[in-house]
Amino acid sequence: MQAEPSNRPYEECGVVGIWGAPGAAGLAALGLHALQHRGQEAAGIVSHDESRFYQRKGLGLVGDVFGDPRDIAQLPGDCAIGHNRYATTGATLLRNVQPLFADFEFGGLAVAHNGNLTNAQTLRQALVKRGCIFQSTTDTEVFVHLIAISLYSTVKERLIDAAKQVKGAYSVVCLDQDTLIGLRDPLGVRPLVLGKLAEGGWMLASETCALEIVGAEFVRDVEPGELVVIDKSGVTSCRPFKNTASRFCVFEYIYFSRPDSQVEGRSVYQARKQIGVELAKESPIPADVIVPVPDSGVPSAMGYAAESKLPFEMGIIRNHYVGRTFIEPTDQIRHLGVRMKHSANHSVLAGKRVVLVDDSIVRGTTSRKIVDMVRAAGATEVHMRISSPPTKHPCFYGIDTPEESKLLAATHSVEEMAKVIGVDSLAFISFDGLYRALNHVNRSEASHRYCDACFTSDYPVELVDREGRLIA
Amino acid sequence: MQAEPSNRPYEECGVVGIWGAPGAAGLAALGLHALQHRGQEAAGIVSHDESRFYQRKGLGLVGDVFGDPRDIAQLPGDCAIGHNRYATTGATLLRNVQPLFADFEFGGLAVAHNGNLTNAQTLRQALVKRGCIFQSTTDTEVFVHLIAISLYSTVKERLIDAAKQVKGAYSVVCLDQDTLIGLRDPLGVRPLVLGKLAEGGWMLASETCALEIVGAEFVRDVEPGELVVIDKSGVTSCRPFKNTASRFCVFEYIYFSRPDSQVEGRSVYQARKQIGVELAKESPIPADVIVPVPDSGVPSAMGYAAESKLPFEMGIIRNHYVGRTFIEPTDQIRHLGVRMKHSANHSVLAGKRVVLVDDSIVRGTTSRKIVDMVRAAGATEVHMRISSPPTKHPCFYGIDTPEESKLLAATHSVEEMAKVIGVDSLAFISFDGLYRALNHVNRSEASHRYCDACFTSDYPVELVDREGRLIA
Amino acid sequence: MQAEPSNRPYEECGVVGIWGAPGAAGLAALGLHALQHRGQEAAGIVSHDESRFYQRKGLGLVGDVFGDPRDIAQLPGDCAIGHNRYATTGATLLRNVQPLFADFEFGGLAVAHNGNLTNAQTLRQALVKRGCIFQSTTDTEVFVHLIAISLYSTVKERLIDAAKQVKGAYSVVCLDQDTLIGLRDPLGVRPLVLGKLAEGGWMLASETCALEIVGAEFVRDVEPGELVVIDKSGVTSCRPFKNTASRFCVFEYIYFSRPDSQVEGRSVYQARKQIGVELAKESPIPADVIVPVPDSGVPSAMGYAAESKLPFEMGIIRNHYVGRTFIEPTDQIRHLGVRMKHSANHSVLAGKRVVLVDDSIVRGTTSRKIVDMVRAAGATEVHMRISSPPTKHPCFYGIDTPEESKLLAATHSVEEMAKVIGVDSLAFISFDGLYRALNHVNRSEASHRYCDACFTSDYPVELVDREGRLIA
Amino acid sequence: MQAEPSNRPYEECGVVGIWGAPGAAGLAALGLHALQHRGQEAAGIVSHDESRFYQRKGLGLVGDVFGDPRDIAQLPGDCAIGHNRYATTGATLLRNVQPLFADFEFGGLAVAHNGNLTNAQTLRQALVKRGCIFQSTTDTEVFVHLIAISLYSTVKERLIDAAKQVKGAYSVVCLDQDTLIGLRDPLGVRPLVLGKLAEGGWMLASETCALEIVGAEFVRDVEPGELVVIDKSGVTSCRPFKNTASRFCVFEYIYFSRPDSQVEGRSVYQARKQIGVELAKESPIPADVIVPVPDSGVPSAMGYAAESKLPFEMGIIRNHYVGRTFIEPTDQIRHLGVRMKHSANHSVLAGKRVVLVDDSIVRGTTSRKIVDMVRAAGATEVHMRISSPPTKHPCFYGIDTPEESKLLAATHSVEEMAKVIGVDSLAFISFDGLYRALNHVNRSEASHRYCDACFTSDYPVELVDREGRLIA
Repeated sequence: MQAEPSNRPYEECGVVGIWGAPGAAGLAALGLHALQHRGQEAAGIVSHDESRFYQRKGLGLVGDVFGDPRDIAQLPGDCAIGHNRYATTGATLLRNVQPLFADFEFGGLAVAHNGNLTNAQTLRQALVKRGCIFQSTTDTEVFVHLIAISLYSTVKERLIDAAKQVKGAYSVVCLDQDTLIGLRDPLGVRPLVLGKLAEGGWMLASETCALEIVGAEFVRDVEPGELVVIDKSGVTSCRPFKNTASRFCVFEYIYFSRPDSQVEGRSVYQARKQIGVELAKESPIPADVIVPVPDSGVPSAMGYAAESKLPFEMGIIRNHYVGRTFIEPTDQIRHLGVRMKHSANHSVLAGKRVVLVDDSIVRGTTSRKIVDMVRAAGATEVHMRISSPPTKHPCFYGIDTPEESKLLAATHSVEEMAKVIGVDSLAFISFDGLYRALNHVNRSEASHRYCDACFTSDYPVELVDREGRLIA
Repeated sequence: MQAEPSNRPYEECGVVGIWGAPGAAGLAALGLHALQHRGQEAAGIVSHDESRFYQRKGLGLVGDVFGDPRDIAQLPGDCAIGHNRYATTGATLLRNVQPLFADFEFGGLAVAHNGNLTNAQTLRQALVKRGCIFQSTTDTEVFVHLIAISLYSTVKERLIDAAKQVKGAYSVVCLDQDTLIGLRDPLGVRPLVLGKLAEGGWMLASETCALEIVGAEFVRDVEPGELVVIDKSGVTSCRPFKNTASRFCVFEYIYFSRPDSQVEGRSVYQARKQIGVELAKESPIPADVIVPVPDSGVPSAMGYAAESKLPFEMGIIRNHYVGRTFIEPTDQIRHLGVRMKHSANHSVLAGKRVVLVDDSIVRGTTSRKIVDMVRAAGATEVHMRISSPPTKHPCFYGIDTPEESKLLAATHSVEEMAKVIGVDSLAFISFDGLYRALNHVNRSEASHRYCDACFTSDYPVELVDREGRLIA
Repeated sequence: MQAEPSNRPYEECGVVGIWGAPGAAGLAALGLHALQHRGQEAAGIVSHDESRFYQRKGLGLVGDVFGDPRDIAQLPGDCAIGHNRYATTGATLLRNVQPLFADFEFGGLAVAHNGNLTNAQTLRQALVKRGCIFQSTTDTEVFVHLIAISLYSTVKERLIDAAKQVKGAYSVVCLDQDTLIGLRDPLGVRPLVLGKLAEGGWMLASETCALEIVGAEFVRDVEPGELVVIDKSGVTSCRPFKNTASRFCVFEYIYFSRPDSQVEGRSVYQARKQIGVELAKESPIPADVIVPVPDSGVPSAMGYAAESKLPFEMGIIRNHYVGRTFIEPTDQIRHLGVRMKHSANHSVLAGKRVVLVDDSIVRGTTSRKIVDMVRAAGATEVHMRISSPPTKHPCFYGIDTPEESKLLAATHSVEEMAKVIGVDSLAFISFDGLYRALNHVNRSEASHRYCDACFTSDYPVELVDREGRLIA
Repeated sequence: MQAEPSNRPYEECGVVGIWGAPGAAGLAALGLHALQHRGQEAAGIVSHDESRFYQRKGLGLVGDVFGDPRDIAQLPGDCAIGHNRYATTGATLLRNVQPLFADFEFGGLAVAHNGNLTNAQTLRQALVKRGCIFQSTTDTEVFVHLIAISLYSTVKERLIDAAKQVKGAYSVVCLDQDTLIGLRDPLGVRPLVLGKLAEGGWMLASETCALEIVGAEFVRDVEPGELVVIDKSGVTSCRPFKNTASRFCVFEYIYFSRPDSQVEGRSVYQARKQIGVELAKESPIPADVIVPVPDSGVPSAMGYAAESKLPFEMGIIRNHYVGRTFIEPTDQIRHLGVRMKHSANHSVLAGKRVVLVDDSIVRGTTSRKIVDMVRAAGATEVHMRISSPPTKHPCFYGIDTPEESKLLAATHSVEEMAKVIGVDSLAFISFDGLYRALNHVNRSEASHRYCDACFTSDYPVELVDREGRLIA
């Protein structure tokens, strides 16, 4: 993930659920820690013991909010759900931190959600008209109110009732006094996996790396449109939606998911390496050294280097101590072109023809700074290879992208982009190359089509609120 | 740098000094940010404008203490010194955060110091007897009192007077109303470099990466035993000590310095790669994949892989969001063998013979956890290669190592260590291999001898206080 | 008000509303400061300018929450309402701090409320059943949901609709984008006054002392059951309830209201003095000195002293620096019988026959401590006179009293109480004496009957939820 | 004490010492709480158990700093000293909070001090010249350094050595590992009393009210110039200075000390009442009501009322919730003449000729506001009577008064002051009247002369640093 905030897409959330394991909140916190890359602004956990619910939420990293063992001790019980959030700043933020919790006629329910509803505003207006009072600006609360007013008698039925009314991309976990439920949207845009804890009990999580950290065994992906119910009788499943071909988010492969996660049964790390291989086949260039923009560019650069038989070097060093806050540079410092997150490793750049490999270009400002830095370190040529197609369209399914006019690729040709960024050459992986790397013949004949709307504008879920979409 | 606190040596400090540049405190903060790897517990800056001194200190990362532009705005002036600190915890900590500042007869003086004095306790007792009142438990305050009671009339002379009384390894920067002074101990154990700011003014810093971030040009290392005085007339230099052969800390190459820094005119990154090459020559092993323990093991592993013609893979993924605090694992969680900082990348480990390359083994507990994790991910064989000789002796020159009895290599043979750590084979770089990688024939004939006392117990500076050394 | 928490009744709230005055939030904060005696646990203000609403809430005194002028600067606009709260402790508190704010179909509405609903739980259950989601545990939120689901089209009509469904004692202020509304319950148990700001604009407040501090002119009490609407066309009034005889809380005279406030057109200070006069007539005793328990006992003691021609002395000194927190005494300190809030003025107690005058006895523990302290200071006799009848029943109308079994007067005769408290004699004002002091012939023939249920159990509003009343 | 900061003199400190009592720190905290009126800005305690010293200091009230029982639990031991401080604001404050602690050759020493040294700057310059490094800007640190460099071998001898070098008004308590020492300056300007704890052990405190709160028995005043040493052998005493007539601060009677304290064997409350009696004799006026400016004016007003046979009424109500911070009034609010601490009780002022009784006039701004408020409440005449002579000169002995040019009485006649303040008449107690009230024939023939320099400019201790006195 690269440097400056809002120059990159940010996944808005990671979710976990634990059922039937002593110390569930501690396990949930570890799972959230493993999913920290999916949201760094806030974290929350709701647990349940035999008698009641407990919750703790806070701004900051999981380790900030749950860093003290006493924080976990105040969340007793064998069941818990948790949530990491990327969110806007401001005084009203805390009320948006998930999981949301509400008392219903039949008891309490906690809900956490990764994704975005495309008809959230429309539904919200209808709910407010009916007399519902919203406390947050999150899509999740739409779910909660739909559940509250549903006339069905069980949480499961009410959740299905709610899910049939919403449109969008989402993975939801819910906890009531008896049951942990996981639900993936009909197209399966956002990921959700099921695991089994070593000493009994079950786990749901956005990615397998969250299972890994607590030693849980990966069982399977929750399937697109599947609702999984975990209670004393074990795991049962139902499919409330009519069958549709799935459209998993291809950006999970390119950038979002952790390289050690498995998505759709495939290693993210290996997928990225293979994209690098395809990229090298499609866009070779004579050079002395292949340098990744760390950390997300590393595997692609390794694949590119291997395929092109050129040396792979860590020519850019990442400063790991960049937190959420730092000196907002004064004009003087800004003028210096300070790079807080990256520095150039002169010893492998000076006098070299350098190929930089990165995962995407959003606004282009970060890329420009990095290229300048590499040239200042003495590179004689700088070429850039991008392991995704040009990002031309915003995401409406849970990723915080700038509006279309701010996307460099939306308004510039590749040649123009090369000039803006200051490189000698620029190339993106092709659609077909990308699909080949993921083991398909090409995009059009892919056995499994992805959601790649940010490249293609082929939006698989209707954009009901588009004109006024909620950004919360 | 690897995971658990106190399993690894920690450099205690980074220092910077700025002279003659508007916004000096902002530049100092950036420099400290680049030196964050040398100390993460606290940070402080003292600045001076035409009329007075200003200071700000706090616990935490540089970005925590100086994250708000207003923090910097309250430190006006063209001159500043700053300090990063690794330190013990506790309520009394803040008074130990440097720079220390004192009012003297002739005006104010701020002092920041990286290293350790080996006669600090002895001097302190004598000073207290004389009526000096200590406010901190730092070695730096010994310097300050020695300066205060010196009968010489200038800061420079008083600093020399003080330096002649102390023994140890140190790089010191001082700021009075007119002058920025840098001083390196006679053997040059700790690093200190001089740079020139692009728009005028001078900079001192522990490493070149701090020059880099503010666009300062590297001028030269401050030499062992050299005192550099920067004032309106420019940079002047003197050598108050009699000539001795220098003994630079070899661990700065192996682990401490940032890979993109240059020390003694040599790239740290390239030195580490070359150590990996030598290690592969000395201790080859049939294997399928070479895997670094990130991040410090990466260049050595690349060198090892290149020399051994085996594939280099990122088989261990580092979680970048591990801060200073996190869930102190409950027994339940500890039982899971949770690894907060690292996770296994199954896709490159399963079914493979793996060579792990790391920089050192201190207590062995972290290594054991990593090996277990790699085996759990399906590695069929695990071999470990270490890019330093066995760490058998504590450091008394500014690095926080455990006492000798806790150093695994002090009490175990290499074969025994392999068993403790759970590897199929274990090898360390030899003394001569290490010196060869640094361009010497071998250790005994090195044109330039290092301080390698942690491996050899050849302590180049007398350990006056040894029995009761201060750990502050 | 006497010392230890929960030994005394606490008024739960004070409210203010400002309409049509620049800097409304600042005026509201001053008004809340003047009403601080009505609630010290939390404070909140919602303001509105031409375009939107702003809010700030926090735990602590008004000066803690709004102590920085920037806090007020972030609450722009000409209209504001504010609230002081007494509340239970705990992490979930903040969501209970008023004013509550909600977005409705027709816009935003802020609501603040002083009092207690006696059918809040019953209504809440019905609302939850309907699908309403509660965020707080306050009665106020019942109002808010009733307004949200009302089918009427204006805030005023919806508020009336809601008010007709609730039972209890309350004074409510509401602010929407155009209007400030004040509403007093049909019996007028809780106070609410209307004032006119010097430079234009209107003010509502629980007591006249809040008008005083901002220089507003007292216009009149809002009448029992009256709804006052303030907007651009001025102040209009309506009476949505059928006429009933009012039942103002007599404890407002005895203890709650500030002595410089006017309630029902009568000075609280003078009323208390007159109660002291009646008490002296009813229960004279030979003594040397009349000593108030400060501060609430001062006027009654002055009246008692004047009537009995005995000297009035400040024999008990109050420590004004007792905040919300202090050393929870260790056993050792508790054993000392430490009195944090009061100390004895030996010079007027030693060797004297002392009459202590206080406003009420709740549990008796504080009285006992004070009596012990006065005896320890050398008093030869200690008599106690109480300016209210015995408190035998809990309040369900907005005052936090202990349950009946904890009220000393509920389980002890006056003679037994005297023994428990350790006094030589004890007397309470009679019902008729109390009414006489308030200018009535006696209780049964009072032209104006008070709510005196805490003394008489004559509860004027039906206790619908009684078995499980909400304590929030 | 009246309202706005810096309009009034503020005593800078209160001190306590406990020796030989389990839970000493808890007792010290209670003592400091009772002395809170002497300093509200910061508080600190140092305790000692058999083996070491513990300290805790913080900004705010005693209850803020020591409000949590765990704070006290971290200060174990049978001995403790504590300090309340009034101090200037700012980031560097904490280092000035007392007790100061230092390690000496012979062990640790904690020192707390109430008062002011008149040669502190002179001594400080000499000490800095010698090489002493100051950490604070307090006079107390001068004591500490003088003790540190003394060549005597015991703390007692070193303290005497230091005391002989300082000039000023002070009461000092010191704690080393064996001994609690109390010392009063030769003229006894500041108070210090000795008490005996009920269950054994000894106590020193600025006022008797601190003994009272922990149930300690008053033994006697520490005498002017007396040094009291408390250790295992009991209490011993010595008089290191040559005999001088004492000069106790008369303002302790008038304003500073708590009314329930005894100073010089006389009740402060009764002294104030008697001043009121004398004032009524000297300056009678036809009026309807005598009204104190609370709280310090209450006893004098009672005395005045009794002597003049006019009714005493609480015509001004104090708001007890004014803390250290509040809305710094905006211009708009300032224009309203807002009185945060006081409000008028209309019912006793309207239509009345009012005599206000207050303790002093410093700048006059507060008096003016109060007079305006009383007139606005309808008073037909307002007269002011002051229970001290005109304050014409600053205090250099530990009370924070404005410089002479800001003292209204220094630049205005009484008639002019009356105009400034807006009263119909103004009178101050005469010197002789004041001395008469304290049982002397008159000032010139007083058996015991007070320090009354703020009225008379008869400064009894040489003002060595006067030109540049330290304000810390």
